[in-house]
Amino acid sequence: MPRKTDTRQRMVRSAARLLRRQGYAATGWRQVVADSATPWGSQAHHFPGGKEQLAAEAVTLSGAGYERLLRGVLADTHPADAVIAWADAAAAGLESSGWADGCPVATVALETAHSSDALAAACSAALATWHAALATSIVEHGAAPAEASALATLVLAGIEGGLLIARASRDAEPIRIVSRELAAVLRARARATAAADGESGGHETVGA
Amino acid sequence: MPRKTDTRQRMVRSAARLLRRQGYAATGWRQVVADSATPWGSQAHHFPGGKEQLAAEAVTLSGAGYERLLRGVLADTHPADAVIAWADAAAAGLESSGWADGCPVATVALETAHSSDALAAACSAALATWHAALATSIVEHGAAPAEASALATLVLAGIEGGLLIARASRDAEPIRIVSRELAAVLRARARATAAADGESGGHETVGA
Repeated sequence: MPRKTDTRQRMVRSAARLLRRQGYAATGWRQVVADSATPWGSQAHHFPGGKEQLAAEAVTLSGAGYERLLRGVLADTHPADAVIAWADAAAAGLESSGWADGCPVATVALETAHSSDALAAACSAALATWHAALATSIVEHGAAPAEASALATLVLAGIEGGLLIARASRDAEPIRIVSRELAAVLRARARATAAADGESGGHETVGA
Repeated sequence: MPRKTDTRQRMVRSAARLLRRQGYAATGWRQVVADSATPWGSQAHHFPGGKEQLAAEAVTLSGAGYERLLRGVLADTHPADAVIAWADAAAAGLESSGWADGCPVATVALETAHSSDALAAACSAALATWHAALATSIVEHGAAPAEASALATLVLAGIEGGLLIARASRDAEPIRIVSRELAAVLRARARATAAADGESGGHETVGA
């Protein structure tokens, strides 16, 4: 028999998979228990805060997994190239899952952000870690922190929206188009920063 | 007593409001009937295709309303300024609704795109009309059609993603940041097009 701790982890992992595909309202305890092959009744013991607690933990788990994926894509690469690679991987995931597996937190965020403090906080925290990963990489490639933060917001929003459009249209082309446009923006900004840096002797933008 | 046709329209309008706020799975017939103050039982008569049919019509209605709004924002304005105005209006709507009223089709799209042909088609059609409105405006301001289409995809994805991040973080700043970045991209492209146009004597990019 699985250990208690294993039961709990399996429920969170199942919830994370189901929330990504179908969202919060459509995901019930019955399905989580069946999908995770855990005993009925254990949910009340492990999640006294109910489905909201389970979902918040699932979003946190998904967010951390996606952060690792994103940091892997960004490592030792210019962010412009990383955005293309990220979109390619996301497009492949969409296609292979029949347009089901997009962003692991977006559906829950849109369904519940206004009505659940716990879920809004979990979704927002996940998005913030992805934003930080992007902003750090953009700073490492020469941008000032404020500009890098704004560019990271643009990139994250663009990829999220691109995934949404791709899912609705059941066509990966929109996410690929968005990633090429974002890469062009990142390269143009890097060129502008390098030019300004050259003119000012290196003290104006880098390390600001 | 309201006419039959009125009953039907009121149900679609109520569904559109509810789907925008809480999504597809959380919106049941009971709530639509209560919200629209229509008689219980009329849903089977008016929507033989069930909740999926009602939701598809609601998404189509919302999509057309949002298209009018967007075309109004784009009229007689450079698309860069229109994107700022659009984001300001969207941010105001988010704030005044307690982060509930974002994109009217995004939640349904993410919940159902992989599982419902009818809803994916309705969401995709709505997004396509908004993309067309943006692309038309960008062409009118000098871009070649292919470039305008790619830029319109970037703008639409950025605004969708910006709304998502703003809702999750209950903070309008991300959507404003995204709109400023998108406006900068549109202005930079317009300058590049004008420069190329000047060099080539006006035949290369405008009207291509």
